[in-house]
Amino acid sequence: MQVEVKVKNPYKVFINEGLNLNFKGKVAILTNPKIAGLHLKNLLEKIECEELFIISVKDGEEYKNLSTIEEILNQMCNSKLDRKSLLISFGGGVISDMGGFAASIYQRGIKFINIPTTLLACVDAAVGGKTGVNNHFGKNLIGTFYQPKAVYCESAFLRTLGQRELSAGLAEFIKMAIIFDANLLDFIEKIDAKNFLKAQCEDEIFIKIIAKSVELKAKIVSKDEKESGVRMLLNYGHTFAHIIENETHYKSYLHGEAVAIGMNMANHLSYELGLLSEEECERIKNLLQKFALPTYYKIENIHEFYQAFFLDKKSANHKIRFILPAPLGKGIIKEDVPKSILLKSLEHFI
Amino acid sequence: MQVEVKVKNPYKVFINEGLNLNFKGKVAILTNPKIAGLHLKNLLEKIECEELFIISVKDGEEYKNLSTIEEILNQMCNSKLDRKSLLISFGGGVISDMGGFAASIYQRGIKFINIPTTLLACVDAAVGGKTGVNNHFGKNLIGTFYQPKAVYCESAFLRTLGQRELSAGLAEFIKMAIIFDANLLDFIEKIDAKNFLKAQCEDEIFIKIIAKSVELKAKIVSKDEKESGVRMLLNYGHTFAHIIENETHYKSYLHGEAVAIGMNMANHLSYELGLLSEEECERIKNLLQKFALPTYYKIENIHEFYQAFFLDKKSANHKIRFILPAPLGKGIIKEDVPKSILLKSLEHFI
Repeated sequence: MQVEVKVKNPYKVFINEGLNLNFKGKVAILTNPKIAGLHLKNLLEKIECEELFIISVKDGEEYKNLSTIEEILNQMCNSKLDRKSLLISFGGGVISDMGGFAASIYQRGIKFINIPTTLLACVDAAVGGKTGVNNHFGKNLIGTFYQPKAVYCESAFLRTLGQRELSAGLAEFIKMAIIFDANLLDFIEKIDAKNFLKAQCEDEIFIKIIAKSVELKAKIVSKDEKESGVRMLLNYGHTFAHIIENETHYKSYLHGEAVAIGMNMANHLSYELGLLSEEECERIKNLLQKFALPTYYKIENIHEFYQAFFLDKKSANHKIRFILPAPLGKGIIKEDVPKSILLKSLEHFI
Repeated sequence: MQVEVKVKNPYKVFINEGLNLNFKGKVAILTNPKIAGLHLKNLLEKIECEELFIISVKDGEEYKNLSTIEEILNQMCNSKLDRKSLLISFGGGVISDMGGFAASIYQRGIKFINIPTTLLACVDAAVGGKTGVNNHFGKNLIGTFYQPKAVYCESAFLRTLGQRELSAGLAEFIKMAIIFDANLLDFIEKIDAKNFLKAQCEDEIFIKIIAKSVELKAKIVSKDEKESGVRMLLNYGHTFAHIIENETHYKSYLHGEAVAIGMNMANHLSYELGLLSEEECERIKNLLQKFALPTYYKIENIHEFYQAFFLDKKSANHKIRFILPAPLGKGIIKEDVPKSILLKSLEHFI
């Protein structure tokens, strides 16, 4: 199936539609050693172009930084890519974030395509044109809005994923359900967790998860490409998650795992504000735990944790913005949370 | 006077209109130690805002690289700038290129304003939204198209410039004359070089130079913001200049000086192709020399020099594109130059 993302330069997300690329000009594939070993042979059979280059960078969120970007740009220069060349990001969210960013600043911008190989990248990172890297101040603080020319999701790639990666991807789908569509929660609760976490569920399950996420995300991004309004809702759980990821130097949690904890934190805040019932909080916590996702993180220094909110990209003019479920199935942007209530909700995590 | 640049988000260039900024939110001024010492006091008297930060980075094209960008971004993070904050680039072309780039990738893009303090930045770098940095492969290979919200040119700043900086700025104006308007050549030839090079010419001379350049550039950029066509003409002299700057590690020549040599090289090529007469070549060479600009560079390795053309951003699909005057007052894009003729024209410089 195909989903169109109606931004200024519209593009399509192809889900299990097969992949055949014929490109006039040079192509560079950005990937990492693990993905390359598993799936590159398969991908190469489906690409025809004038000249091909493979750029392989270290795996993991802790390497999503400016120095890896410099390495990628140097390899692009060394391959003499020009403004008509194409970059393909072939990997998970880390690869698509960095590939999009590198493409957006190489010679002031060249074309790129995303071929996500993780569930998280399929349901979230590869679609919507947010690119970027982390620095020691925080997550994704450096980057651009830069849309791909196309995205190709293939469920076959997901069959080699480990349990943690599948859980992490599902976390972003649970996020979508909580802020946009409570019916999806029923669907998720019915998924056989054991099969799913071994990547042994039916293809239909993967396809429904990807298709629903992409449809919802495409709708939001089409309305608000540069996150000045409704797109902020997609940040549910992320305000907390980014701080956790930064405090743990991007080494302890996969992004989706941190988002799972972040959603539980946001729910506690929502509860303290009277926007969510205790039962609703429990329901989500149980759902996350059913899919082997963490829901707890020990905050060492509550003052530092609080200060870090001000570096969140949604914050402006000394105001912190939270995305909260109110109730399940509907996300709202809340910017007047009293400090005392925020701290009280964080005290569950000290 | 005011000139509008009619890009997607239009903005104005104010020339000697005075400067008074009142900004709700945080402001960071990016500058260098020399400019700050000369002019910052003056600027600060004209800015009101919620919170102010000064970021001062090393002076010179050889520091226009990703590591200085990282330093700037770290200082922006440390100052907790948010998406509603403003960055002001206060300096020459190096500062406006880097400030624009940093603004374009900080939190996926914040507002910026250019206040150029060199003639070159007034007539060229500060207007048009090209941002970027160099790497060891070449000049401006990394960057974005990202337009400022406004540009303020004040001739008062130019009074402290040294001779080389004034000459370098004039080189870009001579470029404009050669590709767009031969009448301007008559005007330039009549300028009293001695006074001009001591920054002792009348204000009217500065204003005419800036106004004419900005008008011409605004027209071109409005037609072709992202350089897919006519904007390439502004690269006259630059195809050669960028290689010279890179070979000399951005240390020997100011950008405008390298452009002067590059124009002379382009003219030699134009002559070899029968597009320019010997007299026209001589006329420009004399004009450049009248304003103390270099016109000769010794090419050490003609093969390496030739190979470097392929990393020029205008090159694509193995074709080098040259901007050539044909004749004076009219620039053309030429992409089928035989290698033998190109090498013959370069032999004047070995």
